[in-house]
Amino acid sequence: MCADRNSPISPSPISGFPEWTPAERMLEQQMLDRIRAAFERFGFSPIETPAVERNTVLTAKGGAETERQIYSLTSLHPQSGGARDYSLHFDLTVPLARYVAQHNNALVFPFRRYQIQKVWRGERPQHGRFREFTQCDIDIVGDGKLSLMADAEIPAVISDLFTSLNIGAFTIRISNRKILAGYLERIGFSGSDAADTLREADKIDRQGTAPLMQHLESLSVSQSTAEEILSLIQMQGGSAEILDNLGAMSDVGEQFQQGVSELKAVFEHTAEFGIPDQNIAVDLGIVRGLDYYTGTIYETRLNDHPQLGSICSGGRYDDLASYFIRKTLPGVGISIGFTRLFSQLLQAEIIKPVSASTAQALVTIPDESLMSEAIQAASAMRSAGINTEIFFEPARLGRQLRYASRKGFRFAVIPLSEDIEKAQIKLRDMNEGEEFTFPIADLPQQILRMLQQ
Amino acid sequence: MCADRNSPISPSPISGFPEWTPAERMLEQQMLDRIRAAFERFGFSPIETPAVERNTVLTAKGGAETERQIYSLTSLHPQSGGARDYSLHFDLTVPLARYVAQHNNALVFPFRRYQIQKVWRGERPQHGRFREFTQCDIDIVGDGKLSLMADAEIPAVISDLFTSLNIGAFTIRISNRKILAGYLERIGFSGSDAADTLREADKIDRQGTAPLMQHLESLSVSQSTAEEILSLIQMQGGSAEILDNLGAMSDVGEQFQQGVSELKAVFEHTAEFGIPDQNIAVDLGIVRGLDYYTGTIYETRLNDHPQLGSICSGGRYDDLASYFIRKTLPGVGISIGFTRLFSQLLQAEIIKPVSASTAQALVTIPDESLMSEAIQAASAMRSAGINTEIFFEPARLGRQLRYASRKGFRFAVIPLSEDIEKAQIKLRDMNEGEEFTFPIADLPQQILRMLQQ
Repeated sequence: MCADRNSPISPSPISGFPEWTPAERMLEQQMLDRIRAAFERFGFSPIETPAVERNTVLTAKGGAETERQIYSLTSLHPQSGGARDYSLHFDLTVPLARYVAQHNNALVFPFRRYQIQKVWRGERPQHGRFREFTQCDIDIVGDGKLSLMADAEIPAVISDLFTSLNIGAFTIRISNRKILAGYLERIGFSGSDAADTLREADKIDRQGTAPLMQHLESLSVSQSTAEEILSLIQMQGGSAEILDNLGAMSDVGEQFQQGVSELKAVFEHTAEFGIPDQNIAVDLGIVRGLDYYTGTIYETRLNDHPQLGSICSGGRYDDLASYFIRKTLPGVGISIGFTRLFSQLLQAEIIKPVSASTAQALVTIPDESLMSEAIQAASAMRSAGINTEIFFEPARLGRQLRYASRKGFRFAVIPLSEDIEKAQIKLRDMNEGEEFTFPIADLPQQILRMLQQ
Repeated sequence: MCADRNSPISPSPISGFPEWTPAERMLEQQMLDRIRAAFERFGFSPIETPAVERNTVLTAKGGAETERQIYSLTSLHPQSGGARDYSLHFDLTVPLARYVAQHNNALVFPFRRYQIQKVWRGERPQHGRFREFTQCDIDIVGDGKLSLMADAEIPAVISDLFTSLNIGAFTIRISNRKILAGYLERIGFSGSDAADTLREADKIDRQGTAPLMQHLESLSVSQSTAEEILSLIQMQGGSAEILDNLGAMSDVGEQFQQGVSELKAVFEHTAEFGIPDQNIAVDLGIVRGLDYYTGTIYETRLNDHPQLGSICSGGRYDDLASYFIRKTLPGVGISIGFTRLFSQLLQAEIIKPVSASTAQALVTIPDESLMSEAIQAASAMRSAGINTEIFFEPARLGRQLRYASRKGFRFAVIPLSEDIEKAQIKLRDMNEGEEFTFPIADLPQQILRMLQQ
């Protein structure tokens, strides 16, 4: 942020490409570690794909909006050429589809993968939007078929994950796209009219009901039918009650009924999966990406921070990779737009950096004659599993302790010279300001004991 | 590797961009976790910089070879434009220099950072060379000055790290560029002659002594002087012996003497840092990058796999970031070209993938009536810290156990139906082929006990 104006090439941030301080990066790593641990608790296996894919792969599905955002590679040196066929990936779904198609024979299905990687989108930078960001995705992909129980397991992963992140109360909202789509089909909506209606329904959270009602009017839908649609989307009540009400609706067609029965089945095992009641709710108001999801859909919100929108979303799809392989690969998955979530949590001070050092203890050197004692103390602490830095620069002890305090060390270790107390050290708890003196040999155990308190 | 030839867009690997199977990726993550833990044990803090830097930053130092390898970003869509000023970073040193200059006021010095990230180079792909690869770097950067003890600590990090990686015996070779440079200066070599000579000396490992001797002849160096230079470079003996011999040499000039005294000081604390004698050796035969390093230099080799070359190298430099800031920032650091090392370890079968799943246990569902028991057993295991997958697809038990075996699970859990033994489960140790039956409630403790054995 603060480039020296006298420097030959003044470095400055690149808009949309976030960069954190070491203390913030430690916090980011801690959160990513917890997300990874939650994914692994449910037996998802890691994959990583190259940052680039062939342009033919990235644009297989089309979509002018996405293509406009793709960063393509070229050589800086005009003579070199060569890389023009590759671009940076803009999500982890296209790479997953390509990976599963390419390594199809080597994979065991159902294939459960997690992927935590950067993606790049040449978006116009604006508040909360990044051009480089980390996504955390999981998917369960079946070969030809995939049990509905996979849909039921996904909320358990979400619940476990956000509980372990410890960033406040959250609600997983769950629905099934067949319910609303079936309802619209039943009242005679054709493909694009239905898709447009779902898109307007998806806006209710941000824009209210007016756009949907105007849209329905433009399709010459009667006032009473429009209100029926709205009351379906906004159906109130507990999850069990909503499921009962949906089950009791008659003359709703096969697709609607299938959606309701899938949603019931997914919801049925919630408690056995260990999901607390207050963390999950049936909500027909969530709709999501129209051309991809075909069944169960998920959104997740922080109860106290609704302005963040959905922080973890996904759903069931019928067809992952038909652009790349003649095989039906149905799946279900979720994605966390991690960088946006992390930056907003930081900004709202829901999470706060604690220390700029990965080490718990700083070993000071009050006098150069104590160099050997300092190094031996540090080596013993590291062997005991205590991350330890040594302050090697010649400086008065006061400056060394200020360094310890600025970087946020919990402990400072001060070797004592022979004429004070032979082979003794002083341990200073920087949080409490207390000091303890004991033999160097006891140091690791003393620190471990204090860390456990 | 095996794209379906009937598929619309046949996916295939991109040369130089490695992609691993899930089992290989798990192994890669495990190694990267250990490297990170070693860095953190010594109090290095993480930073991450964007994948891209401004072209002015990347090319500040010049070097046509490097520039030819830079991947620049452009928009795939010609109308969008905009990204032409940015390129992918080709190492982590230029980004570090830019980061330290840009955030100079926010950092606490000495600044100890580690950085584990992908870098990209548009190299002609060849055996063991990658165009996308992971580097693992650490640096200690001082503000104006940096204690020589930082140089002494670096081999301790290397030794700790490769011990924890457990990939066989290794030797850290250590030297100081001032020794050879001082010697050449003393016998009257000017700047570029000295630099060329060091470059030829660096080739001895791969090409023998002939290129160096021819080069010295071309400079009209007498046969006896050429042999003196060679015998200095190839000085044999234990580290202490070499240091003694160097110390005893007379009429060698100030630079040479300073190099020897630095090398001695660095070597002196080896044992206190816990570096076993056999892991480190003074070796004047290592030279390294000529325009950057100014003092201590390091290389690391696997004793049983010399063909891998140096797997961890670095050294002391006087000036990190003068291209970006009017401040002297001396430092010392090392870098591991991780992807090359990992791929060669895999290929040589020094490391081997064990399992394709992050989970230790697979819960089977022999009959759909046992769904609730299966889910409850899995939830209890996860709560106890055991990564667990449930096999939800309807299939005969035999197929489910084959799946467990193909993916490399250690345990299969088989809930038993009520009419066999109420609320009992069978635990199968897939390694030993043994089976145990006990109440569901005892499952997590039983597995934890067996994992500890």
